[in-house]
Amino acid sequence: MNNNYIQPDNWSIIEEGFDAKQVKSSESLMSLGNGAMGQRANFEEHYSGDTFQGSYVAGVYYPDKTRVGWWKNGYPEYFAKVLNAPNWIGINVSINGEQLDLAKCNKIENFRRELNMKEGWLSRSFIATLQNFIEVKVETKRFLSLNIDEIGAIEYNVTPLNNDTQIDFSPYLDNGITNEDSNWDDKFWDVLSVNHENEQAFIVSKTMKTHFYVCTSMQTQVSLNGLVLRQDKTVNDAIDKIAFTYQNQVSKGETITLTKFGGYISDRNHDKNELVSEAKKTLNKVSELGFDALLEKQKQAWAKIWDMADITIEGDVAAQQGIRFNIFHLNQTYLGTDARLNIGPKGFTGEKYGGSTYWDTEAYCIPFYMATKDQSVAKSLLEYRYHHLEKAIENAEKLGFSNGAALYPMVTMNGEECHNEWEITFEEIHRNGAIAFAIYNYHRYTGDYSYIPEKGLEVLIGIARFWHQRANFSEAKKKYVILGVTGPNEYENNVNNNWYTNYIAKWCIDYALSNIEKIEKEYNSDYTRIMHKAKLSKSELSQWKDVADQMYFPFDDEKNVYLQQDGFLDKELITVSDLPKSQRPINQKWSWDRILRSPYIKQADILQGFYLFEDHFSSEELERHFDFYEPYTVHESSLSPCVHSIQAAKLDRMEQAYAFYLRTSRLDLDDYNHEVEEGLHITSMAGTWMSIVEGFGGMRIVNDKLSFEPKIPEQWEAYSFKVNFRNQILKVDVAKNETAFELEGNQDIEILVKGKSISISPNNLVTV
Amino acid sequence: MNNNYIQPDNWSIIEEGFDAKQVKSSESLMSLGNGAMGQRANFEEHYSGDTFQGSYVAGVYYPDKTRVGWWKNGYPEYFAKVLNAPNWIGINVSINGEQLDLAKCNKIENFRRELNMKEGWLSRSFIATLQNFIEVKVETKRFLSLNIDEIGAIEYNVTPLNNDTQIDFSPYLDNGITNEDSNWDDKFWDVLSVNHENEQAFIVSKTMKTHFYVCTSMQTQVSLNGLVLRQDKTVNDAIDKIAFTYQNQVSKGETITLTKFGGYISDRNHDKNELVSEAKKTLNKVSELGFDALLEKQKQAWAKIWDMADITIEGDVAAQQGIRFNIFHLNQTYLGTDARLNIGPKGFTGEKYGGSTYWDTEAYCIPFYMATKDQSVAKSLLEYRYHHLEKAIENAEKLGFSNGAALYPMVTMNGEECHNEWEITFEEIHRNGAIAFAIYNYHRYTGDYSYIPEKGLEVLIGIARFWHQRANFSEAKKKYVILGVTGPNEYENNVNNNWYTNYIAKWCIDYALSNIEKIEKEYNSDYTRIMHKAKLSKSELSQWKDVADQMYFPFDDEKNVYLQQDGFLDKELITVSDLPKSQRPINQKWSWDRILRSPYIKQADILQGFYLFEDHFSSEELERHFDFYEPYTVHESSLSPCVHSIQAAKLDRMEQAYAFYLRTSRLDLDDYNHEVEEGLHITSMAGTWMSIVEGFGGMRIVNDKLSFEPKIPEQWEAYSFKVNFRNQILKVDVAKNETAFELEGNQDIEILVKGKSISISPNNLVTV
Repeated sequence: MNNNYIQPDNWSIIEEGFDAKQVKSSESLMSLGNGAMGQRANFEEHYSGDTFQGSYVAGVYYPDKTRVGWWKNGYPEYFAKVLNAPNWIGINVSINGEQLDLAKCNKIENFRRELNMKEGWLSRSFIATLQNFIEVKVETKRFLSLNIDEIGAIEYNVTPLNNDTQIDFSPYLDNGITNEDSNWDDKFWDVLSVNHENEQAFIVSKTMKTHFYVCTSMQTQVSLNGLVLRQDKTVNDAIDKIAFTYQNQVSKGETITLTKFGGYISDRNHDKNELVSEAKKTLNKVSELGFDALLEKQKQAWAKIWDMADITIEGDVAAQQGIRFNIFHLNQTYLGTDARLNIGPKGFTGEKYGGSTYWDTEAYCIPFYMATKDQSVAKSLLEYRYHHLEKAIENAEKLGFSNGAALYPMVTMNGEECHNEWEITFEEIHRNGAIAFAIYNYHRYTGDYSYIPEKGLEVLIGIARFWHQRANFSEAKKKYVILGVTGPNEYENNVNNNWYTNYIAKWCIDYALSNIEKIEKEYNSDYTRIMHKAKLSKSELSQWKDVADQMYFPFDDEKNVYLQQDGFLDKELITVSDLPKSQRPINQKWSWDRILRSPYIKQADILQGFYLFEDHFSSEELERHFDFYEPYTVHESSLSPCVHSIQAAKLDRMEQAYAFYLRTSRLDLDDYNHEVEEGLHITSMAGTWMSIVEGFGGMRIVNDKLSFEPKIPEQWEAYSFKVNFRNQILKVDVAKNETAFELEGNQDIEILVKGKSISISPNNLVTV
Repeated sequence: MNNNYIQPDNWSIIEEGFDAKQVKSSESLMSLGNGAMGQRANFEEHYSGDTFQGSYVAGVYYPDKTRVGWWKNGYPEYFAKVLNAPNWIGINVSINGEQLDLAKCNKIENFRRELNMKEGWLSRSFIATLQNFIEVKVETKRFLSLNIDEIGAIEYNVTPLNNDTQIDFSPYLDNGITNEDSNWDDKFWDVLSVNHENEQAFIVSKTMKTHFYVCTSMQTQVSLNGLVLRQDKTVNDAIDKIAFTYQNQVSKGETITLTKFGGYISDRNHDKNELVSEAKKTLNKVSELGFDALLEKQKQAWAKIWDMADITIEGDVAAQQGIRFNIFHLNQTYLGTDARLNIGPKGFTGEKYGGSTYWDTEAYCIPFYMATKDQSVAKSLLEYRYHHLEKAIENAEKLGFSNGAALYPMVTMNGEECHNEWEITFEEIHRNGAIAFAIYNYHRYTGDYSYIPEKGLEVLIGIARFWHQRANFSEAKKKYVILGVTGPNEYENNVNNNWYTNYIAKWCIDYALSNIEKIEKEYNSDYTRIMHKAKLSKSELSQWKDVADQMYFPFDDEKNVYLQQDGFLDKELITVSDLPKSQRPINQKWSWDRILRSPYIKQADILQGFYLFEDHFSSEELERHFDFYEPYTVHESSLSPCVHSIQAAKLDRMEQAYAFYLRTSRLDLDDYNHEVEEGLHITSMAGTWMSIVEGFGGMRIVNDKLSFEPKIPEQWEAYSFKVNFRNQILKVDVAKNETAFELEGNQDIEILVKGKSISISPNNLVTV
């Protein structure tokens, strides 16, 4: 563990003691979000130390002009970036004329921060002695409302401890923000108006190019010892900023409080001419309600989420904290209530990676959302890709494909590609496979086939066409090969016959063909409509089949394993355990060519295929491949440990499975990859959930039934989780020697436990 | 041919008729240079149409901050760019108050430009009718002096044809220039002073970061009908610009002339505090001499160059013009008089590619300079790399190599890497081989071994160490392999076992070992010094030998050819002739992944190896590989046709050799690759010279003797060339049925003609 300053706690992320070196890490770890907006845990008051300021509004992006060293044909000219939004949380504090700034105090004591995940709020307290020797106690609490997702609330308390003191609050709105990752230092926002009325202020601005209109607003109130003060204020407004200043004489031991509500109203949800009036309405509503009542609703809303999504672990606080941290941030990022949104890899915790949608959504996140939300959430994630099909076809055309072949972008916000490394953008094409797999997975889990004839099949056809055109027949191998790809293991670029890619390509074609056959028989009007729309002929289908039937898979007879790609065995096969610690992480220590020619695997590649297509391989095959590849795997992708945890559990290697579990669940908390400052790894958090439910719990869908193979790490007394399966909730409690199942619903279900069929009736505990 | 507007002429590049679409092409084609400075053929007077302005001072560069999409470890933070220098050629012309601007005239007639390669000047004439209906005849002539290489001269004549007219000349200096390829729109120059005295003006500026101090200067004079006028002028100076304005009343039919001398004095050659006084001295000298006398010296200087370097071709004006165009521009770019300089890929004709030194110098240019200049020129090109050895070792260290392994940069100005695509910078490592080969080639040609014990061996050791460390033993192949490289064919990236790379790697080690052995015996004090300095042990040498002896070369038994790299035969092998014209050039039509997985070869790769190591392979082997690879070669690198021309001539395929010859010699004149606007392909011009001398002439060095296999394309009556061989000049005249040899020197030499030994005495024509 590299960054283990977070206190162990079942429900909270707690930091004690002020350390300037940890400010950026904690800003990431303690980020707040409510699905509609979010922000890093920046201090409200001015901080002149090292900080990464970030506030974000879901769905509001900017198409930054692409920056490359050398242009390659096919790169997108612009691509969508997560946009740093105006700051509404700022509250500057002046104490006897000296600005409160934790980077400049004489002394900071009792510093404590807590992100309370159970109730969804962030608090901070400390005692600071300023350079003017005034000692103050500061206590703050902040949350972003789940109930009114356009608003957040802050309570900021200051108590002078050693003197009567003048304490001035300057709450402000600031639109003068930029992106740290801006390519050309462009300005992203155009400020249209700065207004204030009574204790409310408003900045209306619009994003350049994309023309999203956003009203950032605040309402403020000052209280002394809990009693609201009516007082004069000074207003300072500039072209992109507005601040109120309240001057207060506070006696030693008294507490002065600033309460601030603020947030964003955007034209994604409102008429762009009504933004200020909508903001007023919202501010009036929450200020009438008051901070405490809104916080009470917040606690109730989080309780409802936890009731469905919580995983309990007994006997291991680090593990418990880890899984809740993951589930909490997933729910802060995406709640499934807005079909236009997706699950950004950094959520609302940073800028890195741009775009919001990766194959992570399909490969990792959909299982989590399927099981912990209504099945409509997973369906709307599928529909998101359906809506982008035309763009995926255009994207493939840019790369020379035709006839409706679709290549979904590596990273996207609106269906267009948001990435520009040729080895990724053009070559990491396996992503197409995960998008098809998610359709299969949705049907397998929910039993809802209707989505496929309605919409899914068109996506499957576009993807199958892509694979058909992308493979070529090798006269040397007398098989179809796929040349020049990057597999899930991004530490190999432009390789030939990446096993995972070839395997999922074949599967996509087979799956599309079997669905076409089924839909022809069972949904004939859909069949006719789709075949006509796609101009798909029987002869094209037989060409697809030819490619799928004769796909090449690299295999080594001597080692009896599939090769990750052609030539893998030419490498110098030194295992990770023989690699000096000083060389790691290799992506920070080694030049790119050295990484590429090494055997080191960034994340599960063949093992990812064995995970998706588990039924196609025996346990012996899994074991052989695990034993061969895991020793070369450096797990420098956040998406690696979870798959390894699941596979290790399947192989009954519980110690290893547990170690991988800790790594996936505490990846950010313990900062394994030395990069948590940049933001959290949101999408891999769903992998953490899988590593418990699918790994330890052994949950699968077998012939329309839930199936379990419960196992428990030695370190744990018990654990429990719930899954929503076809609109009934099954709670699973795994203890050392038994597993209990309890159904919330109204219909008996059959489940499999270690292969044995068991019937569960509603509200009737069954122990196995 | 794509751009064939240049008139056929044996000695000149002539454009007739004004076409705005050709302005940028002609600016490249008619560029002027004198080894020390150069400039594109921009018009002197203002031109508001599409133009690419460029003036350059040899050796004055700027380290621009690297721009990439995603940073990779090992990229240089800054890299050196060819720097656009202040403009000294500008002369604005006002005619009855209207600015002369060829983009805005009512009519332009008799437009003609000529780059006279025999004498080294550029002229332009036209009759323009302005919007004010004044008709003027303009005649200009410009050259950059070879004799005083810090100065150039312009004569600018205007004759009103239909009216008495006021004609104002505003000659100026302008430091307000930028680079078109600037990464961050940085300013590259800091202006220190702008001064004038009498008819002279001076701008002293220094480059940012590199702190080169340059004085740009001019001296001007106005004459009427050839008689110098003494007249008042107006001076306009700004922060980075200075202009004189001379107002003249000119009667219809009279000619007013502005003569302008100008150029650069830099602290590369002078004390930085003396730049203005040096500039004054130089201007005084040339203005005393006068335009005509300086031009006379220019003609003499070029006559001397041509006397040695000219190649004559009878019966084929396109071929004749092509070869002279190549020889002319090579000599404009690099004359071998300044050991700090090298041969930039665009010379003084554009900015593209940054840096000045590629493997082109060693692989293509050294043979030309060895044969057409004193052998000290080739030696100083070798020494250039010797001086960069420490930087090459640092460069290798950045990529994880150690123990003095040296990797020369792909592109450099001062020994540091100037390129940042991982697949090139980190992987196109075969460049190291060419640098070692040049040492071998220099010794083979000149017979001068002394360079190797003195300096060359250290370079060979650094390079051998690199290859030793870069190869790894493949347990699967039981051979040493080199993984993850880009070969000379840059349309393949990150491939395994590129045959050319593996071959030259083995050769480099063998060659280093044999030199160490020889030097141990014959130059023992050098041996001791170098072994001590390099800390080289016998056991390390035996490890090298192991790698060289067991190097893997991909080979296909069925086709009986070496494979360009592992997996080449998995490609869809469609020949170039079956590729629709609309798809070419593929580098402008296809996305990068499509190019990479195609079989198409940008430039000779295996055939490049067969060229360098000709003696290692039989003619049958050459023929087989030529027949296999040439059909997939798109020749989209300027370095491709020349090697193919040589190989085709060797195989007696004279029609093909001739076609390749035309393509290499007229690459820019006919703009085969649609990019001449960006500048000329200087380094490949030396390949054109090789395609005549080594291709048609069949010149080789065999056991310290010149050897010839003269052949002649059907289209030619005769051709001739001269080579400087070990300080004697041999002239070779090839006619249809005989070849004549004539020696300028004082010692008989033995040469081989078609394998037969012949003795040639000085000044005695021998016909074979």
